Amino acid sequence: MTLAGVAARIRAGELSPREAVAEALARIESLQGTLNAFISVRGEEALAEADALSGRVGRGPLHGVPVAVKDVIDVAGARTTAASRILADNVAAVDATVVARLRSAGAVVVGKLNTHEFAWGATTTSPHFGPARNPWDTERICGGSSGGSGAAVAAGLVPGALGTDTAGSVRIPACLCGVTGVRPSLGRVPNSGVVPVSWTFDAVGPLARTAEDCALLLQAIAGHDVADPTTVDAPVPAYSELLDGGVLGLRVGVVSHLLEGAIDPRVAAAVEAAVAELSALGARVERVDASFLRETEVVQQLIMLPEAASAHLPWLRTRLADYGADVRARLLAGLLLPGTAVVTGQRARRRLYAEALGLLARVDLLVAPQMPVVAPRIGEDTVDAGGATLPYRLSLIPFNSPWSCLGLPVASVPCGVVDGLPVGMAIVGRRLDETGVLRAAHTFQLASDWHTRVPPTAA
Amino acid sequence: MTLAGVAARIRAGELSPREAVAEALARIESLQGTLNAFISVRGEEALAEADALSGRVGRGPLHGVPVAVKDVIDVAGARTTAASRILADNVAAVDATVVARLRSAGAVVVGKLNTHEFAWGATTTSPHFGPARNPWDTERICGGSSGGSGAAVAAGLVPGALGTDTAGSVRIPACLCGVTGVRPSLGRVPNSGVVPVSWTFDAVGPLARTAEDCALLLQAIAGHDVADPTTVDAPVPAYSELLDGGVLGLRVGVVSHLLEGAIDPRVAAAVEAAVAELSALGARVERVDASFLRETEVVQQLIMLPEAASAHLPWLRTRLADYGADVRARLLAGLLLPGTAVVTGQRARRRLYAEALGLLARVDLLVAPQMPVVAPRIGEDTVDAGGATLPYRLSLIPFNSPWSCLGLPVASVPCGVVDGLPVGMAIVGRRLDETGVLRAAHTFQLASDWHTRVPPTAA
Repeated sequence: MTLAGVAARIRAGELSPREAVAEALARIESLQGTLNAFISVRGEEALAEADALSGRVGRGPLHGVPVAVKDVIDVAGARTTAASRILADNVAAVDATVVARLRSAGAVVVGKLNTHEFAWGATTTSPHFGPARNPWDTERICGGSSGGSGAAVAAGLVPGALGTDTAGSVRIPACLCGVTGVRPSLGRVPNSGVVPVSWTFDAVGPLARTAEDCALLLQAIAGHDVADPTTVDAPVPAYSELLDGGVLGLRVGVVSHLLEGAIDPRVAAAVEAAVAELSALGARVERVDASFLRETEVVQQLIMLPEAASAHLPWLRTRLADYGADVRARLLAGLLLPGTAVVTGQRARRRLYAEALGLLARVDLLVAPQMPVVAPRIGEDTVDAGGATLPYRLSLIPFNSPWSCLGLPVASVPCGVVDGLPVGMAIVGRRLDETGVLRAAHTFQLASDWHTRVPPTAA
Repeated sequence: MTLAGVAARIRAGELSPREAVAEALARIESLQGTLNAFISVRGEEALAEADALSGRVGRGPLHGVPVAVKDVIDVAGARTTAASRILADNVAAVDATVVARLRSAGAVVVGKLNTHEFAWGATTTSPHFGPARNPWDTERICGGSSGGSGAAVAAGLVPGALGTDTAGSVRIPACLCGVTGVRPSLGRVPNSGVVPVSWTFDAVGPLARTAEDCALLLQAIAGHDVADPTTVDAPVPAYSELLDGGVLGLRVGVVSHLLEGAIDPRVAAAVEAAVAELSALGARVERVDASFLRETEVVQQLIMLPEAASAHLPWLRTRLADYGADVRARLLAGLLLPGTAVVTGQRARRRLYAEALGLLARVDLLVAPQMPVVAPRIGEDTVDAGGATLPYRLSLIPFNSPWSCLGLPVASVPCGVVDGLPVGMAIVGRRLDETGVLRAAHTFQLASDWHTRVPPTAA
């Protein structure tokens, strides 16, 4: 059941908010032991909130719809642990702006989703809260850092969820779990009330079954926020009303070095088939040389490592032993980088953005494989790249850093299955053109059924 | 003679471009030995350019007017030394955008002005090119880093000049030399073709006898530049046509901690008298507590030091011995700051800017002493602060860093004489409101004559 479908049934009176929420809670209870998608569940609170919505006038577009948010996003009265030991007992006093907005739209937050510790890693295998498991194969990772969000949506525990994305953390789990995820443009969605990773890259984004569902969630959370001066003070388009129109004549650039860089050739083949589908739908597809984007792989690290270390400075002084080994190592690396490296990175980011503007003047959208491989096994830290062994974490940076580094909106859309595991296509737009990204994703989903596949765990 | 006056005489046919340029060259020749205001003079080139302007149709507003630019600003075919040994033989291939724009307006660049080495210091006492000397007392500094610009305008060698300002480098010499100087808003004037100090603070600005003259120069150089993506793509007001209107009802905030922080009480008294004049002209003057601005003193250093070190990295590796001792020490300090310090500084800058927005919603302009003291003697590195000895360089940071750090437009306007040396008042406006700053300065100058005083050297 899609989020749009649940909302429509509630609107039609076929389902009460309480029934919708109770059903989500039941599914969560039955699959939590298998998937470990949640860190905490707001059972009684959510049911009470659903009851309070019954028969309410002036209904929001998400009236009574159960949703869940990654456990780095504050929900008043609930713990925000960031899957860390350091924040294990951290109870939020007020809602994050995005949560307040979800509530305004009528949604009911049923729980807090598992994440990589402090949202900084791509496996969601917190040493403190345990790994989230992939509904397509519970021996495999969900990706990360919003791994719980990907798993919960894929398994139908909730019809929609919020994640956060600093360097791929919405797109990676969306891809590996076979759902749709959107990283909005930098500044489109407020970060107030969200545990930061890296201030100039962090973006809250939706995960759901379809682009249409993501549009509904993004509509609810997007827009300027006085509490977050990094948000753009620009009007938010009516995404849901702008999904139709197709891709006829749209100029779509396939990023050559990423297509060729997909480690698993079956992944590249699936993305090529999806691109052929876009072409059949009327898009003017061409290969583009965007190899300058490779620079973003290092540039993002130069900025992100010290930004993250800066956010963690007090805990690095007092709680160093309480971090998981991988996150601690990254934070310590951030302490070691000199100021000149940050400055160099920031200068390069500006130059690369100008170059990307040139590319996005020639094409309307870019597409690429979202990931070079399907979901690895839990504990499997390397991938086999044609005989060579590559760290899993490094293998995915080229596919994610370009759009994070430049603040461009990007969706990951299911576009294939390899070895019973999902493959995703990244669709990238111009800054603040979430509309174009969502419309292309929606058009593709009208013509394909990859997003409708149900993983074995949920069947 | 003011720049507006020279331009008017040329327009009226009372003075030819060649005569104007020849007169400037003659004055430069007669006073260069005394003041050392220039690093290089474009004698023949300037005369040839003046001849080429004779009888030309479609005259620009600065048609035939001789001007000079600080020797960090490229003029095609001329050396840009930055008063350094490292760039001693660096010949510019093309004009900086500001120079190209001056030429488009009809101005003739007669030479390149002395500066603190690499525009990073407040004394203009380059170990490689010698100190520029203050026309009011040649045993005293001109301030810096645009010291040559201040001296040249004060002594009437040219009616207008360009300087650059990262942390006070236009305002300080304008103040100490008794001329008017404007640091425009960050992004108002292009930096392309200008030797950088610190990318997120650098601003090219005019020095001239009056605010009216500064308006003419700023008009010529301001506006978006594709070659400098940090420039703001916003319309440039017709500054010269907006100078009238007075200050009646204008809310003017006197920055209490800076007025009280003036080391020489006679400086504070001169600024208070100027403020009383603004009040007599109809401004609604009030004291404001802006002590939060003290944070900018450290915050700017956290960002500026690594930015400058980053720009100099190649030379720090290969030419370390070729720097003067003071600039080298600052660059090495920039190498030592960790990335987290830069990030912390950038976060603080954003927060402080938001706080300044609040202050500038309550008042239209801020005023303060431009400097805590009058010009020190050359080689005198300390100032006497009520018995305590303070480094000169540190004494001026509180008066300059706030506006640099926040990217606000600020003018230094002559407002008194102490011990035969000029005193200046800083007038600060909202971001991109150079108009308001220039109008207040012009209104003050209509009612005062400090800007008309001629230093003994020039008499």
